[in-house]
Amino acid sequence: MRVDDIARRVSGKLQGNGAITIRGVASLEAAGPEDLSFAEEPRALSRARESQAGCILVPRGGAIPGRTTIEVEWPKASLVRVAEILYPEEAPAPGIHPTAVVDASADVARDASIGPHVVIEKEARVGAETRLAAGVFIGARAKVGRQCILYPRVTVYRGAQIGDRVILHAGVVIGSDGFGYVFTEGRQHKKFPQIGQVVIENDVEIGSHSTVDRGSLGVTRIGAGTKIDNLVQIAHNVTIGRGCLIAAQTGIAGSAKVGDHVVMAGQVGVGDHARIEDGAVIGGQAGILPGKIVRKGATVWGTPARPLREFKRMYAWFSRRAATESRITAAQKRSR
Amino acid sequence: MRVDDIARRVSGKLQGNGAITIRGVASLEAAGPEDLSFAEEPRALSRARESQAGCILVPRGGAIPGRTTIEVEWPKASLVRVAEILYPEEAPAPGIHPTAVVDASADVARDASIGPHVVIEKEARVGAETRLAAGVFIGARAKVGRQCILYPRVTVYRGAQIGDRVILHAGVVIGSDGFGYVFTEGRQHKKFPQIGQVVIENDVEIGSHSTVDRGSLGVTRIGAGTKIDNLVQIAHNVTIGRGCLIAAQTGIAGSAKVGDHVVMAGQVGVGDHARIEDGAVIGGQAGILPGKIVRKGATVWGTPARPLREFKRMYAWFSRRAATESRITAAQKRSR
Amino acid sequence: MRVDDIARRVSGKLQGNGAITIRGVASLEAAGPEDLSFAEEPRALSRARESQAGCILVPRGGAIPGRTTIEVEWPKASLVRVAEILYPEEAPAPGIHPTAVVDASADVARDASIGPHVVIEKEARVGAETRLAAGVFIGARAKVGRQCILYPRVTVYRGAQIGDRVILHAGVVIGSDGFGYVFTEGRQHKKFPQIGQVVIENDVEIGSHSTVDRGSLGVTRIGAGTKIDNLVQIAHNVTIGRGCLIAAQTGIAGSAKVGDHVVMAGQVGVGDHARIEDGAVIGGQAGILPGKIVRKGATVWGTPARPLREFKRMYAWFSRRAATESRITAAQKRSR
Repeated sequence: MRVDDIARRVSGKLQGNGAITIRGVASLEAAGPEDLSFAEEPRALSRARESQAGCILVPRGGAIPGRTTIEVEWPKASLVRVAEILYPEEAPAPGIHPTAVVDASADVARDASIGPHVVIEKEARVGAETRLAAGVFIGARAKVGRQCILYPRVTVYRGAQIGDRVILHAGVVIGSDGFGYVFTEGRQHKKFPQIGQVVIENDVEIGSHSTVDRGSLGVTRIGAGTKIDNLVQIAHNVTIGRGCLIAAQTGIAGSAKVGDHVVMAGQVGVGDHARIEDGAVIGGQAGILPGKIVRKGATVWGTPARPLREFKRMYAWFSRRAATESRITAAQKRSR
Repeated sequence: MRVDDIARRVSGKLQGNGAITIRGVASLEAAGPEDLSFAEEPRALSRARESQAGCILVPRGGAIPGRTTIEVEWPKASLVRVAEILYPEEAPAPGIHPTAVVDASADVARDASIGPHVVIEKEARVGAETRLAAGVFIGARAKVGRQCILYPRVTVYRGAQIGDRVILHAGVVIGSDGFGYVFTEGRQHKKFPQIGQVVIENDVEIGSHSTVDRGSLGVTRIGAGTKIDNLVQIAHNVTIGRGCLIAAQTGIAGSAKVGDHVVMAGQVGVGDHARIEDGAVIGGQAGILPGKIVRKGATVWGTPARPLREFKRMYAWFSRRAATESRITAAQKRSR
Repeated sequence: MRVDDIARRVSGKLQGNGAITIRGVASLEAAGPEDLSFAEEPRALSRARESQAGCILVPRGGAIPGRTTIEVEWPKASLVRVAEILYPEEAPAPGIHPTAVVDASADVARDASIGPHVVIEKEARVGAETRLAAGVFIGARAKVGRQCILYPRVTVYRGAQIGDRVILHAGVVIGSDGFGYVFTEGRQHKKFPQIGQVVIENDVEIGSHSTVDRGSLGVTRIGAGTKIDNLVQIAHNVTIGRGCLIAAQTGIAGSAKVGDHVVMAGQVGVGDHARIEDGAVIGGQAGILPGKIVRKGATVWGTPARPLREFKRMYAWFSRRAATESRITAAQKRSR
């Protein structure tokens, strides 16, 4: 792909040699003369000057003298667009692999691709252009929408509802039983019915081995466009809004409600019945106690979580104080 | 199912219209005129008044004037009993699916149900009425008891022992090698033998993608009736007692001992060789240090974990103190 | 195996009855008269005296009067050597199981063992003496080296590179997409290309259900001899050095760099772009903030992580202080 062709496709302003051929995309450090790279922030521009990249996407006004650059509004987003052309996805051929076991009552779109050792149970539905990789399991009456990609060993329990353009990475589990027991006579735990629904809306992506439990009586729901990382746990009756980002190993306990565009860093714990309002940001390893509310747009950290500024101030005071007093105590001991 | 029939089955006191037909169970908020719901706590009774439920299970003395209610000792437990009748489990037909690979020396009960792409290795045993869903793997000489349910992609390593009525959700791993290495010459790690046993006793339930390692030389054991949530890690040589509840993403390190009826909230970490005595309760994200003891019936929180009251008091003091001193410092700066 | 034979093989000094037959290895507590056990530390010697073991490996000078012992430099390492002889691994027969689906263009070594329901896609390579257990998935153009063991349901995404003598436990995922999105117009998240590489070097072992993402543009790399426990998350573009030990449920965020011989306890969180230098030790549940550096050989703990001694001192001061002041406050209230 020629540089001037790239410039046209991203509606950017070319400076330098438009005849260069680009065969891949790479980071500034790793890029070679046939790679396209990008510099999003002003800071990156100095690193860009030393890059071996054949062409660099830069922000408006960021052209580098003597280099081939393309000025655009959003360099990173433009790189994504070029990458999609340079690395077309290898879609497997449509059709059902002979080793797959598909119930006669299942409704599988003719142009879906069903891989080896897939199992599709009765009355399940798989939409158009959807790809189920090796060993995917779709339980009875579950529904997977159009243009989804389910990577190897994804397990969709009976009755789960999955929207369009959803990506589930290897081993994701959708719709397993929630963790709910009733104490009866004699300290015995009896299983509370886990007969509710689970709904994954359109354009959701979920990382490897994350688990989403079905509702007990109600519904577990993950809103459109929300992205979830690896090894995340979503418990029964949790509601997550649209456009959230939830990083790896975070756990959200039963009946918690998460608004739209919420961001959670890694290893966050959200207690049951907590409420995280729209646009809130939760720092890594923070713990939101059961039933607590994180207000709209707030940024919190720590366990129990506090507003970020307050937590930082508390912690700074704590370490300063502790150090001062330790020194005093040590001095007193010496002077005795 | 008619309301008067339900009242008889739960030995409850009916008030209102016994002729109503009930087709499902639901939460107070979601229930419609053909649903049964329940109100366990006094607080819930006011929400019950506004519910659309056709019939509500209430505690003794909790009948609601003008509504159809059934008074029982334990409303939630009674709901479970009704749900079991309304939602009979769909048991797959007994027999071995033609795509399953079962060694000739394996002993599989005739009324067990062995799903597609299951693998059962030599001399393994599978008990009566047990269901192995698609893609379950049972290693050589492993034993799975009666009336168990193993959901898709469960992996049972060679020699693991699983009792009766055990439920293992999708992707659970039983009996993988523990994390044990010996330093030899030159900082090389050499694998310490992981040749011990793993025993899962009767009536245990384990959530999706949880992992239980076999003993290195000894035994990893999970006691009868213990319930474990998703993505939990149980290391080699751990012993867990009876009737425990262990929430999601908790990790228990090597050789730790957990008593009976212990409750752990989510994301708890228990260090190696720690001991948690009977009936202890560990708060979310708490960390029990290696070798430490949590006493019988204690409730602890924080890392390192402390008695809950002490931790709360410390934390309250800390945040108050830090805030006061920050304000003083700020005032001093302004007055200079 | 006779005790005098064992003594010869570990080049140890025998005391007692060399004619005893040993059939297994066990811990001091569990060992019987036909078991070999070991006492590594001086502390263990008193427990060794009460052991029923037929023979005990002890450190130099640690012979126990009246017992059959073998003095060696490293008792634990010697036990490993004996265990390898007593418990020879049951290697499955070489060859490709008839239910496996292997692309005609894949290059599988003739003496590799390919289990039931394995899938090997086009142009993938599997080295000599490597064992792929039931349901393993090897994506297109991925490479698995010699003498590897991949346990059931391991998923290797297209193009991943795995060295020699690598052990991947049940459900491990290598090469899934990293968690990277670009904000474009209207708060929409667009997937950033995850088209980089993932390299697992020789002699790495990874525990059940751990996940390793491929690089976005660059490479995710795990160095030779590094051992990783269960349910660990390694994000895109992370580099881990040689000979590290990483315990269960730890998460390492994007582009973090970990040196050689680093030790991380369980549930550690490492922020993106953090750097952990050679030989550092990170305590359980500690959190390294994004972009922070842990210096060579340092031992740190807490979130945000601090040098261990400092953290302990801070924490001790904190709990002492808080307790003192709480008592004063209580006394003042009473005296009013």
